[in-house]
Formats: sequence, C-alpha cells, structure tokens
Amino acid sequence: MRRKVDEFMEKHGLGVGDLVRVVKREGDERITFEGLVMPPYELSPGETLTIKLDNGYNIGILIDAIEDIEILERAKEAPKMEFKEVLPRKEGLPSVTILGTGGTIASRIDYKTGAVHAAFTAEELAKAVPEIFDIANITPKLLFNIMSEDMKPEYWKRIAHETAKALNSGEDGVVIAHGTDTMGYTAAALSFMLKNLTKPIALVGSQRSSDRPSSDAAMNLICATRMAVSDVAEVMVVMHGETSDTYCLAHRGTKVRKMHTSRRDTFRSINDVPIAKVWPEGKIEYLRDDYRKRSEGEVEVDDRFEERVAILKIYPGVTSELLEFLVDKGYKGIVLEGTGLGHTPNDMIPAIERAVENGVAICMTSQCLYGRVNLNVYSTGRRLLKAGVIPCEDMLPETAYVKLGWVLGHTDDLEEVRRMMLTNYAGEITPYTRFDTFLR
Amino acid sequence: MRRKVDEFMEKHGLGVGDLVRVVKREGDERITFEGLVMPPYELSPGETLTIKLDNGYNIGILIDAIEDIEILERAKEAPKMEFKEVLPRKEGLPSVTILGTGGTIASRIDYKTGAVHAAFTAEELAKAVPEIFDIANITPKLLFNIMSEDMKPEYWKRIAHETAKALNSGEDGVVIAHGTDTMGYTAAALSFMLKNLTKPIALVGSQRSSDRPSSDAAMNLICATRMAVSDVAEVMVVMHGETSDTYCLAHRGTKVRKMHTSRRDTFRSINDVPIAKVWPEGKIEYLRDDYRKRSEGEVEVDDRFEERVAILKIYPGVTSELLEFLVDKGYKGIVLEGTGLGHTPNDMIPAIERAVENGVAICMTSQCLYGRVNLNVYSTGRRLLKAGVIPCEDMLPETAYVKLGWVLGHTDDLEEVRRMMLTNYAGEITPYTRFDTFLR
Repeated sequence: MRRKVDEFMEKHGLGVGDLVRVVKREGDERITFEGLVMPPYELSPGETLTIKLDNGYNIGILIDAIEDIEILERAKEAPKMEFKEVLPRKEGLPSVTILGTGGTIASRIDYKTGAVHAAFTAEELAKAVPEIFDIANITPKLLFNIMSEDMKPEYWKRIAHETAKALNSGEDGVVIAHGTDTMGYTAAALSFMLKNLTKPIALVGSQRSSDRPSSDAAMNLICATRMAVSDVAEVMVVMHGETSDTYCLAHRGTKVRKMHTSRRDTFRSINDVPIAKVWPEGKIEYLRDDYRKRSEGEVEVDDRFEERVAILKIYPGVTSELLEFLVDKGYKGIVLEGTGLGHTPNDMIPAIERAVENGVAICMTSQCLYGRVNLNVYSTGRRLLKAGVIPCEDMLPETAYVKLGWVLGHTDDLEEVRRMMLTNYAGEITPYTRFDTFLR
Repeated sequence: MRRKVDEFMEKHGLGVGDLVRVVKREGDERITFEGLVMPPYELSPGETLTIKLDNGYNIGILIDAIEDIEILERAKEAPKMEFKEVLPRKEGLPSVTILGTGGTIASRIDYKTGAVHAAFTAEELAKAVPEIFDIANITPKLLFNIMSEDMKPEYWKRIAHETAKALNSGEDGVVIAHGTDTMGYTAAALSFMLKNLTKPIALVGSQRSSDRPSSDAAMNLICATRMAVSDVAEVMVVMHGETSDTYCLAHRGTKVRKMHTSRRDTFRSINDVPIAKVWPEGKIEYLRDDYRKRSEGEVEVDDRFEERVAILKIYPGVTSELLEFLVDKGYKGIVLEGTGLGHTPNDMIPAIERAVENGVAICMTSQCLYGRVNLNVYSTGRRLLKAGVIPCEDMLPETAYVKLGWVLGHTDDLEEVRRMMLTNYAGEITPYTRFDTFLR
C-alpha cells in the first residue's frame, strides 16, 4: 500500500528540497510553516510530511492536518560544473586534505538526493564552500559516513592513520569533518594517537546542516582550513566562537567539550584558554604562545588502545554494583566522574580498593567539569588516594577516559599507568589552575 | 610509639588552630607557608604537619623537611558567652530554623576541638555569624553531620520531614546547611518531596571552611537567611554570585549545578535564570517574577522514592553491558546522559528496547548540560523515541535522576512515568529555550 505522504507529494507535485509554505490545522487555529520538503523517512508509516525549518530542525506535519500547501521555490538543480574529482592545483597555495567522517556538516546532500549517505567530492565542496579553494589546494576524501554518536575507538584509529598518511605524503594540514556529538572525544583520541605532530589537524563540524542560510558549516570549514595552513602543529577543534558569524575559536583537542545541545558556539575550552581566534577572512589572533609550532618530520601513529575502559558517574545513591560488575567483566580501567574535588561515597571505597588490588586502574575526575580534582583536602579524598585512585588533575572526564584507554594500550602496570596518566602528553593537564577560564 | 608529628608539636609548643609560618626545605630551595595548624589526621603515620592555608586547602609538610617554624598567633579561646541553646527571641523578627547536615560550612569547629563532628549550636552560630541574629530569631538544629558525598535518598527524606515540621510549626523559613558536593541533588530532591510549599527553603554551603578570612560561609549564611525570610516559597540554593564578597544568587533547586571544584561562585543556574540576587545587607533584586510566592497553608511531604535508579553516561565505546546489567539487577529506571541532542550509539538501541519491554523507564538527558534534548532532529533520536525513551526536555541529568526516583516511587506504569516526567512540578522544565543563560 502506498503511504499517505507519497500520494500527497505526488498529488501536489512536491519534490524533495522544494521550499514550501504549509498551513496546518490545529483545532480552531491555523499555523503556517515554511521550510524545505525532506524525503519521507523510510521506516515511517508515512502519515506526516517532514519539513526542515529555517532553524535547522525538522518537523513532521500530519498529512490529514494540512489545509494548504504552496511551493515557494523549486529545489535548485546543482549547476553542472566541469572539473574532476581533484581540482587542478593552483600554484603557490598550500595543500590540505579534508577527511569526511559524517555528521551534520556532511548532511547537505542528504535530502537533495534522498540518499542516507552524503557524498563528499571536490565538486560538491566547491559548490558549497568555494572560499576554501582560495586558501589551499583541497583534496577531499570520504573515510566513512557515520553519525558521530556511533563513533568508536576503531574509527579513531582509522582517522589517525589516514591523517598521518596525508601529512606524511606532503599535505600541509588536515581538516577532519566530524559530527559534533563526539567530536571532543575524537579530538582527544587523535591528540594521544598522533605523535611527533609537525602540522595542523583541525576537526570541524556544524550545528545546522549546510543547506540552510543559518548554517555554520561554511564559516566553520573556512576557519578550519585557515587553521590547517597555520603555524599550529596540534589537534584542534575549530568551531564558532559566538552565535553570530564573526569568528571561530581553535580549541586544543584535549581541553574542548560540547557544552550546548544546539548553539553554534557550543564548543568551549574547559580549564584552559583556546589556542586562537580565527576569522574567515584570514586573520588569526593567537590567545597563547605556548602552542606546538609547525616543524619538519614524520608524524607517527601510536594507536594501541585498550577498549575495556568505562566512565562511571558518581551521584547520591550510587552503589558499588556497577563498579564491581565492570571489574568482574574484566575491565582494565574506570574513570570516575566524582563529586566536587573528586569524591565518591565513603561506602564505595572498599570496592575501589578491591578493584585496584585486582589491577584495575581507577581514575578520578570531577563532574563539575571546571576546576581540578584535589584528593588532599577532605578525608574522603585522602581515603580514595590511599585506596589507589589516580587523581586526574584538571582533565575533562571525557579526555581522561580516552587517555586511560590509550595508556592501558601500552601498559597494565598500575604504577606505570599512574605515571603516564599524570604525564602531560598533549596539553590535557593545565599545570596551574586558571580562574579566568570559568564559563567562557 | 609516639608519632613524629606529636613530638614536633609538643617540642615547639604548637596547638591546634595556631597560626604559624613554616619554612620548608626542598632541595636547595626554601619555601615558606603560613597557615593554621590542623589536628594530625588520626590514621596517618604522623610524618607530616598539616597546615590549613589561607585558600582553605590543607597541605602536609614532612616534619623532616621543616627547617623553621614560628607561631604568629595563638588559637583564640572562644570568648565565654552567657546565652542559652536557643537565644532569647527578639520581638518583631521572623523565625528561621537552620538545619545542619554537615559539609564544609559546618567544619569550623573541627580543628579547634580536634573532633570529627562539628558542633552546631546557637552559641557557635552567634559567634561565627552574628549578623543572622539581626535578621531572624534563629533556631539551629543539627540533623546529622556527614560529608555531602555520603548523602543518600534516605537522608533526603529526613531533611524533607524536618523541614516540613519546622515550617508547619510556625517558622517563617528554613535554611539547610549542606556540603556543596551534592547540594544540587538534595535541592532537587526537596523540590519534589515537599509539596504545597508556602515558605522559603534555602540550601547553603561553603567552598572554604568558615575559620578562614577568605571563607564564603558567613556571607552565604547571611544571604540564605535573607532568602529564608523573603517572599519566595521555593527550594533554593543560595551561594556566592561571583568570587568576591558582593552578592549571592538564589538558584531554583531543580536548575542548579556545581560547576567548579573550588570557586566560590561554583553554583550556576543551567538553562534558566536564577530567582534573585541577594546582598548580605538585605537588598534583593528579583531576576524573574514567576517564582512561587509565600502564602498560607501546611507544607506536605511526599517522599516515596524508588532507589533502584541509576545514571549512565554515554561515550564512544560504551557497550550495552552496563544497561543490561542494571535491567538484570531489577533497576526500575535509568537516566542516560546522551551525547548532543540526546543520542546513544545505534547499536545500543536494541538493549534499550528490551529494557523498556521489561518495564524499565529509560530517560534521556544531554551531557552537554546546556540546551535541550530533541529526539526528532536526527534518525538516531527518532529510533530512540520509537524504542520508548523519554526525552527529558532541558532537565539536568542530576535533576532527571532525582525526579525519576521520585516518579517511580509513585508508579511503575511506563505511560504514567512518561506523563509525570514531562510534567513540570518544580520548575525543572523550562518551557522555552533561553539562549541568554549559556555559561552564566
């Protein structure tokens, strides 16, 4: 049986991508929506027409409640352009590889084609964001196309190897297009897995899909490309610095976190100052001078990673059951998101002692996110220290989790684990507490 | 055998609470510390002298590394004051009960007496913070004295009953002194457990113990007492609004979170505007007018609470194991701290479906903290919705956890759980997304 939505679209001559005005009946009221027609969701019963609003969100409108629909503008046919998969190189420009991994930034094509997987070719990029081709010779490569909530350590490894391959084959920098949900985790993973970094790596995403006027995709991609040809030989996240289209911030990959579900300036450096402000026109204002500088030499990949690692959040009423279960299951490391300065209920401490006796690394971070764990202030903290907990300084819980997996990929000796966790490999530990970075 | 620290203190005539200057040898360097002598930690081997620095932190200095020590000021003997446990009531002042539950704010007495449990009498309060006796007739009551990391649902119930008892016996407001680690959770719990609120309840704590000049305890307690006699019939957290001693913020109990391990202005309203700014001198500036107003009537306690509830954080590499374990263990509800708009990896969805089929309530919040979950934007979200996940709007994960325990104390019918979780009982859901509250 044909679905209502398919019949409705046929009857009104609607095409995917058309801009429409829909009048919906709600009781005695009439509500008007404007937006782009989205392809009907494959598994849906087809009772609704889905419209992508200007704010980037989709709404489903019951076909039976639609009183009127008007096509304001037909979906534009992409103009045919005559260039090859890799555009002719311009003399004198640096070279940047853009690796696609999926996410909203790659979702532009979705509803135009109705396909689930976004394409990612030089041609499409050139149409979407022509500005980047004036900054560098761009080589796009679609590694895979997943929503970033499906990201896993094995994908981190693939991204690390592809990034190193590009840099070691002469590229001046790499941009990684990535969904925003877990971009911070991937940035941390690459920060540890890529050693002897001599060139920039800029992760970039968008909070609004790139087909909308309000999208942040183009400016973010331009700024990320600027950072990819900059002097900074670090793993960065480059995203909007404020809600309007003024500048982006380049955050250190180990200190950055997604702090808002939907704002464009969602990514924030926690407990540290971003590396730079970058404007799409090309200006870069460095906010610190202790970043790693571009240099010569091969980038190395060290992707040994122990996947039997978990994050456990602490809260009133938490029991030792989850911790004990993980130990029984053979987990090698657990990052606790403690309260305050890094605490658990005192009645969890015996289970923590047993975990450590069983060779499981227990690391402490704070669910406050801002600040630094300190297990010397209160007696609970001192008991946790005595039980063998490793206090992770001012590391983000997410970064501590990624780092612990990486550290345990190298050793399972708890003293060595402790030493490595407290060694600052990629700026993940701010040596002194900065009070000027709170809620910035 | 006597410990080194005991011998050292005897030899130098040091008393607990004395202000000292210590010169410590570190290699060729000499470092000088000033602070108060703390009682030697009972279980310690006694190799160190513990000094409470001006910033509120304790440091342990190896006795063997102490090169010089000078007593700058003797611990003051508390002046004897002749008043009874409850001070004579002043005519015309409102009445406030201060319930003590423990935490840093009650830690003042600790090192003076060497006792583990802080005393909490009118006399001690009057000595510490005489200002509050000009605001109200104060009745102090020490309920218990625990570090707030040891807080549990059963204690929430006791606090709720004692609070209601005080209010229903004619008190004009209640102040609850509480450790800061889990104050936000307790504030949320009281917000749900206390019904028909007609008078103010102000939770208060401190980030520096009250014996130090830099302590925030006195000002916080004064501001909390001011809010306890105010017009606001809600559960509030009253803590420093900025690092300096200017004003406090009164936060709604369901929207507040500890956001910094050690700053005095650590408590922040998330996704909402605080109820008021309050100055110790008495001025109150309301930041909104939609708060619940003081009125007449008995406060009721509804403390039914299902303790088999947990928070699970989502991250790349998380497996379904923990979720399945909790379901097997008979947990009735799980709050997921999803990524972004409220996502899990797609390969967790079958386990979530089975949990829901087994009658377990699965609620979605966002680890971004700021913003609002929206499971309609991406296909992963729509699959989660279809699996039966309850999207918790802009609720904090911590508040959703407390609320879910309270809701499941009333029903285990999943449709009713969903209805109650999406009903706004105590301001835990902000009806529309405010973009002006990000990182404030």
